Amino acid sequence: MKAAIIGGDKRMMYAAKAFFDSGAEVAIAGFDDLHSQCEMQIMPIGEAVDWADFSVLPIRPLTDGVLNCPYAKEKLNAKVFAEMNGDKPVFCGNSDSLGEYLRAPIFDYAAREDFAVKNAVLTAEGAIELLLRHYEDSTFNSKILVLGYGRIGKVLSRYLSALGAEVTVAARKASDRAWIRSMGYHTIDYSFKELKDYPIIINTVPAPILTAEIIDTLRDDVFLIDLASMPGGVDFKRAHERDLTCIHALALPGKTAPKAAGRIIKETIIQIIKEENGGKENSGLCPDRLLLHL
Amino acid sequence: MKAAIIGGDKRMMYAAKAFFDSGAEVAIAGFDDLHSQCEMQIMPIGEAVDWADFSVLPIRPLTDGVLNCPYAKEKLNAKVFAEMNGDKPVFCGNSDSLGEYLRAPIFDYAAREDFAVKNAVLTAEGAIELLLRHYEDSTFNSKILVLGYGRIGKVLSRYLSALGAEVTVAARKASDRAWIRSMGYHTIDYSFKELKDYPIIINTVPAPILTAEIIDTLRDDVFLIDLASMPGGVDFKRAHERDLTCIHALALPGKTAPKAAGRIIKETIIQIIKEENGGKENSGLCPDRLLLHL
Amino acid sequence: MKAAIIGGDKRMMYAAKAFFDSGAEVAIAGFDDLHSQCEMQIMPIGEAVDWADFSVLPIRPLTDGVLNCPYAKEKLNAKVFAEMNGDKPVFCGNSDSLGEYLRAPIFDYAAREDFAVKNAVLTAEGAIELLLRHYEDSTFNSKILVLGYGRIGKVLSRYLSALGAEVTVAARKASDRAWIRSMGYHTIDYSFKELKDYPIIINTVPAPILTAEIIDTLRDDVFLIDLASMPGGVDFKRAHERDLTCIHALALPGKTAPKAAGRIIKETIIQIIKEENGGKENSGLCPDRLLLHL
Amino acid sequence: MKAAIIGGDKRMMYAAKAFFDSGAEVAIAGFDDLHSQCEMQIMPIGEAVDWADFSVLPIRPLTDGVLNCPYAKEKLNAKVFAEMNGDKPVFCGNSDSLGEYLRAPIFDYAAREDFAVKNAVLTAEGAIELLLRHYEDSTFNSKILVLGYGRIGKVLSRYLSALGAEVTVAARKASDRAWIRSMGYHTIDYSFKELKDYPIIINTVPAPILTAEIIDTLRDDVFLIDLASMPGGVDFKRAHERDLTCIHALALPGKTAPKAAGRIIKETIIQIIKEENGGKENSGLCPDRLLLHL
Repeated sequence: MKAAIIGGDKRMMYAAKAFFDSGAEVAIAGFDDLHSQCEMQIMPIGEAVDWADFSVLPIRPLTDGVLNCPYAKEKLNAKVFAEMNGDKPVFCGNSDSLGEYLRAPIFDYAAREDFAVKNAVLTAEGAIELLLRHYEDSTFNSKILVLGYGRIGKVLSRYLSALGAEVTVAARKASDRAWIRSMGYHTIDYSFKELKDYPIIINTVPAPILTAEIIDTLRDDVFLIDLASMPGGVDFKRAHERDLTCIHALALPGKTAPKAAGRIIKETIIQIIKEENGGKENSGLCPDRLLLHL
Repeated sequence: MKAAIIGGDKRMMYAAKAFFDSGAEVAIAGFDDLHSQCEMQIMPIGEAVDWADFSVLPIRPLTDGVLNCPYAKEKLNAKVFAEMNGDKPVFCGNSDSLGEYLRAPIFDYAAREDFAVKNAVLTAEGAIELLLRHYEDSTFNSKILVLGYGRIGKVLSRYLSALGAEVTVAARKASDRAWIRSMGYHTIDYSFKELKDYPIIINTVPAPILTAEIIDTLRDDVFLIDLASMPGGVDFKRAHERDLTCIHALALPGKTAPKAAGRIIKETIIQIIKEENGGKENSGLCPDRLLLHL
Repeated sequence: MKAAIIGGDKRMMYAAKAFFDSGAEVAIAGFDDLHSQCEMQIMPIGEAVDWADFSVLPIRPLTDGVLNCPYAKEKLNAKVFAEMNGDKPVFCGNSDSLGEYLRAPIFDYAAREDFAVKNAVLTAEGAIELLLRHYEDSTFNSKILVLGYGRIGKVLSRYLSALGAEVTVAARKASDRAWIRSMGYHTIDYSFKELKDYPIIINTVPAPILTAEIIDTLRDDVFLIDLASMPGGVDFKRAHERDLTCIHALALPGKTAPKAAGRIIKETIIQIIKEENGGKENSGLCPDRLLLHL
Repeated sequence: MKAAIIGGDKRMMYAAKAFFDSGAEVAIAGFDDLHSQCEMQIMPIGEAVDWADFSVLPIRPLTDGVLNCPYAKEKLNAKVFAEMNGDKPVFCGNSDSLGEYLRAPIFDYAAREDFAVKNAVLTAEGAIELLLRHYEDSTFNSKILVLGYGRIGKVLSRYLSALGAEVTVAARKASDRAWIRSMGYHTIDYSFKELKDYPIIINTVPAPILTAEIIDTLRDDVFLIDLASMPGGVDFKRAHERDLTCIHALALPGKTAPKAAGRIIKETIIQIIKEENGGKENSGLCPDRLLLHL
């Protein structure tokens, strides 16, 4: 099986390595100045897609209609890439953006629940690191409010509790609050008018939860982490005016654990291929050989 | 109750704050250029010991016979301090060094087991932070060897396991290994000849465990943390020659959680005072008032 | 607020007690030979519904069209009860069965996710008890397969793991398997052809998973618990022929923790009332007074 | 290697089985009416010690100077056994009682810390079972006081906390209390005058902690478990007079997990043999062959 890994950052290099270690042949494209120290080949993008059975692009494959290749000098238009690629399957995240250019089948690994769960673990690790690094008191015995009980909220609150924090999780649904209590955490709903009891607040919800009004109720020495993707859930302007400590932490997996972040891209693609192959002997998508290497 | 907090770093400032928040009157000495924003007073050292009921010095109270006051311009000799202090009780760590100069009663908070346990929690948090920050793979699902099952080994292995690592702990005693297994970790003794199976190794034992011979068996991409105090348990020279990633992490509590580190100094001193007072109405060591504020 | 608690077993007595302790007035009906030791009143069913603001019936309110009152000598037809009850709200489980007779509003507490989560905790406790009581080896260090990762599977696998078992959870969805791995358990899907590696298997799925074919692959000394409601997920006939140890454990919450089982009935009803009242001053369903006692 | 397993109960049968499964030849003695279904041989005691390299006796090897063989019709005097045994090594618990009769080397497996730790895990499992079986409320969310933080206290409080209980541990030493807090439990010392806040109290300390005075302060519906060996730590007479629910649970490992209890006897004896053999090629105590089977 031949995979072309195209563009992105360190995480994609590790994805390439993970494919290679699973027994795939790998070409890396979109990195100038890169020299391979193993049998992974470095190719121009056009050559790579030609040679490979399928391509893998980053979670955000495009920036303004151009392939996301920060380490390449030349910029490649999505349209041009689509022509080069022809009919070969493409794996990427946020597939809507790239999909409109392609006539080939496109598979969105980042939209899958299994990818999201694994990514949540890495995000939680990154949040723990930020807390341990920047907060001057111990996590042990601290009082932490986690906003939201989705994937990240679930993993993060478990980790914080294991590190000895007294965790409160805010959730809307009574069933989520029952789950939260079953884990031994406290829980509140979102009807709060103030949050002055919490020295640490970590938001995971991509919605305006920490509005200016709520920000005004926080302690002066509060430590805020916002894990929600842009624009986040915090009124940063007001937080800034109050001079609060507030970190908007984005794309933590690629920062805190690029190797694991790359590996789960590979794992998810392998799982997609398995499911596509289904019971059928050979779906045409992918040589059987790959399946031997899981 | 009047406490003089003398010298040290950020941690001692937080110790002062902790005494103050417990209701004590506090004087801070040995910090030039410091301006108090609350009722804690800034005094020269001589005045402070005169005014106070007792003094609190850092874990390492002396450097080469001189008081450990890195933020003071003038250096104060231990002998001179002893004269200033007269008969008033002194609390510090490593009391042997200072004790030989003093005629006053001296209490070593750092030598106590309860202090050491609380400190171990902070050290473990610091080690987790180093791992999350510098190791490129996830802690989740990683294979970690912890050398030693003393205080730090106990807390650290629990935290690592909670973060999803597969933990192995090396211990000499069969009973320790029984405890380790009861926690769900793997265990080995120290008869190992090589350690190439572990991508992450964290040493807690102040003895030459990771000798040049063992260092030579480690993986090229091993991630080493040595938490043992000087000279540590790693042959750093050999590790350096092999270009291994190796962090000798010292005094983590003061770095990762200075506020908590200061607070546990205060808590331990309060505990010493309670025990000294025993059942007696007033041991003379400390006014009853303090006891109301625990 | 006046609540009539009608029929059922010990669990309903504890539900009555929980309402009473929350400040409600309570009448108990459908228990002959019962003498109240407190201000809860014993009444005939007709009187009780007349007196009360609403009625509470068991999770299974009917047996063959007759009210589920095992401790009453006389049997009361559902139709007769419906006439007695008139327009007053009724809370019960499995509301479809009773609902067809009633013209009053009916609320199914057992159909709610928050009730189910709390019930799952009690079921997991009951399963742990069965395992500890009947299995001759320790749970610590044992190898356990849990079939299914629904509510009960989630709580149960967490408890087993905390007690030192090596847990494998079978789940169909890749995302569930990602969650399972994130908790540190092993995972398999349902494509297994044999299960001879597991000395302990606990089924939570109400579907024929442990068919005769699979039963034939189990170890002679396997310990089987089936937590799935009737008809369960085990081919009991075949298990019996093979003389395997197999427990079909039904309605564990009422057996293992009747007091908690009663309390969560009350808690769920209170939550329903709160939600029905919504922002409105008074929905007519329930006097405000109750809300003061949460 | 040939082992004679002599007397005791089900636990000893499992110890025999564990030796046999490790590759030892095994003779069982002191059980009338027993028929072996495998290659373990049934012998009279005299023959067995003659045939074997060493003997294994129960944790309590003697009752009133007679070998503890409840399943044998004839009683064997310790003195007679000592003569039969001659110079061969004997492994048992409470070795003082038997030791005075023997001229052979005697090894006390039950006195070892590693045995005690493994036994504590089984005792904790047994205590959890009693709690789940007899207490009518859930363990989840319950408020439990554990008296003592020795081996059993350590494992038990961890298990209870994992099952969602709010755990308080009473301990005398400040360092133990620091450990207890580091685990996330509450802690008190033994200066309490009353314990009315705890619906569940589990004692692990073999000393009169729950005196008549303290018993008088307990709630009417308290649930008491005493795990301390005879005479226990509870004033049972007073508890009985107050009609409190109180279980004095003795020898739990043999009841709750006889198979594991037998296995850890075997594991500990193997460990003793390894340590006795030390680095020496052959200490004479035990053929090398055994060591291959660990």
